[in-house]
Amino acid sequence: MAARRPGYVWLVGAGPGDPELLTRKAARCLEEADLVLYDALVSSEVLPLAPRAQCFSVGKRCGGRGVRQETIQKLMIRAARRGKRVVRLKCGDPFVLGRGGEEAIALAVAGVPFEVVPGVTTAVAAPALAGVPVTHRGLASGFAVVSGHDERAYEPILRSLPPDSLTVVVLMGLRTRNRLAATLIEAGWAPATPAAMILGASTASPHAWIGTLDTLATAPLPAEAADPPGTIVIGRVVSLSSILAPRAESSASAHAAGERRTGG
Amino acid sequence: MAARRPGYVWLVGAGPGDPELLTRKAARCLEEADLVLYDALVSSEVLPLAPRAQCFSVGKRCGGRGVRQETIQKLMIRAARRGKRVVRLKCGDPFVLGRGGEEAIALAVAGVPFEVVPGVTTAVAAPALAGVPVTHRGLASGFAVVSGHDERAYEPILRSLPPDSLTVVVLMGLRTRNRLAATLIEAGWAPATPAAMILGASTASPHAWIGTLDTLATAPLPAEAADPPGTIVIGRVVSLSSILAPRAESSASAHAAGERRTGG
Repeated sequence: MAARRPGYVWLVGAGPGDPELLTRKAARCLEEADLVLYDALVSSEVLPLAPRAQCFSVGKRCGGRGVRQETIQKLMIRAARRGKRVVRLKCGDPFVLGRGGEEAIALAVAGVPFEVVPGVTTAVAAPALAGVPVTHRGLASGFAVVSGHDERAYEPILRSLPPDSLTVVVLMGLRTRNRLAATLIEAGWAPATPAAMILGASTASPHAWIGTLDTLATAPLPAEAADPPGTIVIGRVVSLSSILAPRAESSASAHAAGERRTGG
Repeated sequence: MAARRPGYVWLVGAGPGDPELLTRKAARCLEEADLVLYDALVSSEVLPLAPRAQCFSVGKRCGGRGVRQETIQKLMIRAARRGKRVVRLKCGDPFVLGRGGEEAIALAVAGVPFEVVPGVTTAVAAPALAGVPVTHRGLASGFAVVSGHDERAYEPILRSLPPDSLTVVVLMGLRTRNRLAATLIEAGWAPATPAAMILGASTASPHAWIGTLDTLATAPLPAEAADPPGTIVIGRVVSLSSILAPRAESSASAHAAGERRTGG
């Protein structure tokens, strides 16, 4: 009689959106999964990679609302105890502002074997795909990533960063961009510091706004987006987007060269 | 007569080490590449993914020494102008402390079509694989990534960060860990702040040291490593490694479950 297969959970980063930016390991975990619990922002194109699995949206936007955290944890633990191979698929990287640590602790405490599969974090990839390197010699030799969701969390950090000392990346900060910009300007950052706001990075409909710290507050959101997820980048590196942002002709030449699967 | 195929360059992140942590897109770029220029720290297991390509190590360690930057840029541009499909394969993410921005600018200025393919950054993945989430509710709602290579770059940043306000990740800082720790302690961080030093993350021989800020300076390096690449993490999140660090039995159970390709 074959021994019963033990359950297992992978906490997997899905990357910034494009299914091509999943890791090879993430794809293999999905291939083997019996159950996939995915965040609302994970692309639906990813799910066909898990042909054997039942897939449930747990409705969370990155770091945001949805199915209660405790419920997600219970679902994972229960399924693993029944011998299921579970993929918990999270936007970006599981440990960057996504409560992945809480999910990992719940699994550890429950004695469920699990593994973290790091992903491409939106904090770095969204700027990159809009032509903004988060570090660049002579402009920024480091970067800070904060959540714009809670003023009490980001304010002490932003107030303390010496102007222009590093690049500031804010996730979940579109709604609070007015306050974020004011905090940095009050802390001595020049109002003319370059700033960018990036939505839908690596998806079929990307949107990048490039401006300055003092115009960030009034930067227009695309019409359909009331409280959309997005990435804000502040710092001198943003100026490089004028040179590095992908151009229509460069994608066109990738296509002309027969590059379809990896283009875009 | 077929039109001549235009050249193209992909600036690709190879992730922290494990070839399974390449993105699917990176793997496809390698599959199509005629020429691969890779950093010294990129795993040799990655090269078989580029069966058609000539592969050259350009000898650079992440952000470090090797073939001159100008030479790498000239090689890419010359090959692309001859119609080659070039992959420039960089450790971690191409835009995190790796001079990827300089390479991208050189390509843009030369009029060579190119694309950036973000990768899993070691700054997040190395801590994660040692059981340290860079953010965690109640412990750190953000993180900063700096290079430990140049004191003039990291010192103003580290001096300004309010103690415990966020997680500090230092790449290329093993050699300067004495100075890094002293800077933070002088800036008011408690000497007992948890700290970790991680080498060989996601490779076959990982090494993690877990201690405190005041013992970081004297943390022993593995014997074979004189000036090794590695990741330092400082902050309260490091304490979670006691719960989250992968255990022998958990890998064993992954193996028992037939999980070979994605385990480890």
